[in-house]
Amino acid sequence: MNAEILCIGDELLIGQVVNTNASWLAEQCSSIGIRIRRITVVGDSLEDAGDALTQAWCHNHILITTGGLGPTHDDVTREIVTSFFSTPLREDPVVLSDIERFLADRGRVLSPANRDQAMVPVSAHVIRNSQGTAPGYHFNHEGKHCFVLPGVPYEMKSMAELYMLPLLRTLQPAPYTSRTLLTTGIPESTLADILSGVEMLLPATSVAYLPGTHGVRIRLTSRAANDDARSEEMAALERFILERAGEYVYGSDDDDLARIVGDLLAAKQLTLAVAESCTGGLVSDRITNIPGSSCFFERGMIVYSNRSKTELLGVDAGLIQQHGAVSREVAEAMAAGCRERSGASIGLATTGIAGPTGGSAGKPVGTVWIALDSGSHQVSHCFHFGSHRMNTKQRTAQAALDLLRRHLLDLPAIPSFCTEAS
Amino acid sequence: MNAEILCIGDELLIGQVVNTNASWLAEQCSSIGIRIRRITVVGDSLEDAGDALTQAWCHNHILITTGGLGPTHDDVTREIVTSFFSTPLREDPVVLSDIERFLADRGRVLSPANRDQAMVPVSAHVIRNSQGTAPGYHFNHEGKHCFVLPGVPYEMKSMAELYMLPLLRTLQPAPYTSRTLLTTGIPESTLADILSGVEMLLPATSVAYLPGTHGVRIRLTSRAANDDARSEEMAALERFILERAGEYVYGSDDDDLARIVGDLLAAKQLTLAVAESCTGGLVSDRITNIPGSSCFFERGMIVYSNRSKTELLGVDAGLIQQHGAVSREVAEAMAAGCRERSGASIGLATTGIAGPTGGSAGKPVGTVWIALDSGSHQVSHCFHFGSHRMNTKQRTAQAALDLLRRHLLDLPAIPSFCTEAS
Repeated sequence: MNAEILCIGDELLIGQVVNTNASWLAEQCSSIGIRIRRITVVGDSLEDAGDALTQAWCHNHILITTGGLGPTHDDVTREIVTSFFSTPLREDPVVLSDIERFLADRGRVLSPANRDQAMVPVSAHVIRNSQGTAPGYHFNHEGKHCFVLPGVPYEMKSMAELYMLPLLRTLQPAPYTSRTLLTTGIPESTLADILSGVEMLLPATSVAYLPGTHGVRIRLTSRAANDDARSEEMAALERFILERAGEYVYGSDDDDLARIVGDLLAAKQLTLAVAESCTGGLVSDRITNIPGSSCFFERGMIVYSNRSKTELLGVDAGLIQQHGAVSREVAEAMAAGCRERSGASIGLATTGIAGPTGGSAGKPVGTVWIALDSGSHQVSHCFHFGSHRMNTKQRTAQAALDLLRRHLLDLPAIPSFCTEAS
Repeated sequence: MNAEILCIGDELLIGQVVNTNASWLAEQCSSIGIRIRRITVVGDSLEDAGDALTQAWCHNHILITTGGLGPTHDDVTREIVTSFFSTPLREDPVVLSDIERFLADRGRVLSPANRDQAMVPVSAHVIRNSQGTAPGYHFNHEGKHCFVLPGVPYEMKSMAELYMLPLLRTLQPAPYTSRTLLTTGIPESTLADILSGVEMLLPATSVAYLPGTHGVRIRLTSRAANDDARSEEMAALERFILERAGEYVYGSDDDDLARIVGDLLAAKQLTLAVAESCTGGLVSDRITNIPGSSCFFERGMIVYSNRSKTELLGVDAGLIQQHGAVSREVAEAMAAGCRERSGASIGLATTGIAGPTGGSAGKPVGTVWIALDSGSHQVSHCFHFGSHRMNTKQRTAQAALDLLRRHLLDLPAIPSFCTEAS
């Protein structure tokens, strides 16, 4: 069953926006066995978008469009689909009340432009939008399906997850099984060396490495003939990987390391306080992205100035003077002070030179110290993350969360490949 | 002069890779006046990629392909273009020596697959690749241009920058000028109402609204015949918008609100301390993304627990008891305590219910209070950001930075459309 994704929006054609909608939809569809044969991007033009829609409908069983459903004059998608499917519009009372409620919740009143968004194609099933004012449409004509979704990513994803993907799953048995193992703290080439031979293990499987600032993802795919065979193959691959590189694997698929450590803290009824210098709030931000994090996250202190390190954490000013703010001694004092002053079970601290300036010969830009203190247990580790400020913040936050994961799971604080290599 | 970008690669159709090549090429081409009419993505299939190439060549003056030039069996692009342009292959000695040198520098020897990459289409001009082994091709047929580039982003960019873009600049004077104004604090439909008529102001201009969690971007485009006319038209559009909605416009193009307020703080030699509850570190994270932020950012305190609000900010426990942690009174006490205790010039505080739980009838999920205290000046404002946790964090952080921007620019703290509407 073939599909095309048609993205509509001038912002995509001038490169103002990277098309993450297409890759997300492609990944979702692929994972349930729908083959995307083409992704097309056109502008907010009746002619270009209309032509692309006609072609895509002609060559595929499933067509998914994104974008062009907003309340303003440059939004052309509704006009294109109503014309293509030859259907008039009607005002939908459920959509109208959805829009009114959405606006009322935000203290806003219904404008004529918003009211017009409740006008939907008569021959379409409406896909309700809980995150915005634009409804989506589902046309089921000639045994084919056309899903019309908005371009705002979180609106599109919510509507795809609640309506479109469950429906597509009923159409299509999955012809392959895929799973991604998430690793952190080990470079791609070292990981590939440790796992060498995994790609030859079974004939119907494949293994791909995808590096990023949060670590290397390992994508496993089995195309064996049936569900049971695929499950067996995937389990064999996972066993192979976990035996050789288990300490680096923190989760799978959409897991987030912050959520993993949050679950561990909650299960052990421990609380956490964080002291951040170079990460500037990113560690706390990631932890507080987790619903329910207030149960285990006591507080965070972003101690950018030396004064704040002393006032908020009790770090001795002389220690900073002697060793510098980016040092094992200060990192450890930050973690200890943060734990003691907050009353939390564990203190976690980051201090480093994010750049682009502030480096020296002994401590180049990208030097980072991370420390953890649980009262009975102290550990600290130095990293070198290079000269890109945002990458260094992201890598440091991930490494800090991983130090916490290793502590909570009684794994070695320092990755084994570091100690084995030296 | 119209162009199409054709990206070839299975990894794009299964969503494993986000298509940043297309957005980068689109941005580069747009900036030199080449209009991208379509972006097409197809898999590593002779049939699908061949069909897409034929269509794209037929409808455009310029065609740019990426991907499918590697040394392995799944790379089909060379076969497709040699067949389409009916040209045999020849071994190119310069390309061969480029490949040999590239491999030698990395301690590798020439494999048969690499040697085959030196076989290039006779009728194409070769585009040399200093970053990898795959050469690109440039076909100039029937007054049209086809550029064939590899899919690895840094190889593609290097070849585009050194060869393709300079050549395209000679073909094409820029036929349009585009600029994006960034607004925040006003919904798309209200903004469109206030600016109604802007799209009719001048015949050769267009205006598009692009909403997101950071606000609504307004993209202005002029296609007037010459540079002077375009500059005049853009200036007229901007004047129209700034007269009616100037207070909501915080910047343009790639500006970030955190950088805008950082520059204002630095220029006024003011320092900032932040107390975050519902944003959980996101405000501080955004501010510390700015290189040099240590000059004006004193500290941040993420006061997730009531205890930490009292201990770190001196918020009276009785006040929290009486009004709740999400209230005007507590937000104001947080901002004041944060300023006083840190010694910073300005204290900025957020407290709200990010959800998904914790709401009540009087204070539904998404209720947020933001407060600012400069010693001589206190202001606070309530927002309703809906039930999506991550969106609420992002919208709150943006609104807090905007409250600070409004304070630093002596603008009204409460957006005018709110006070006018009520």
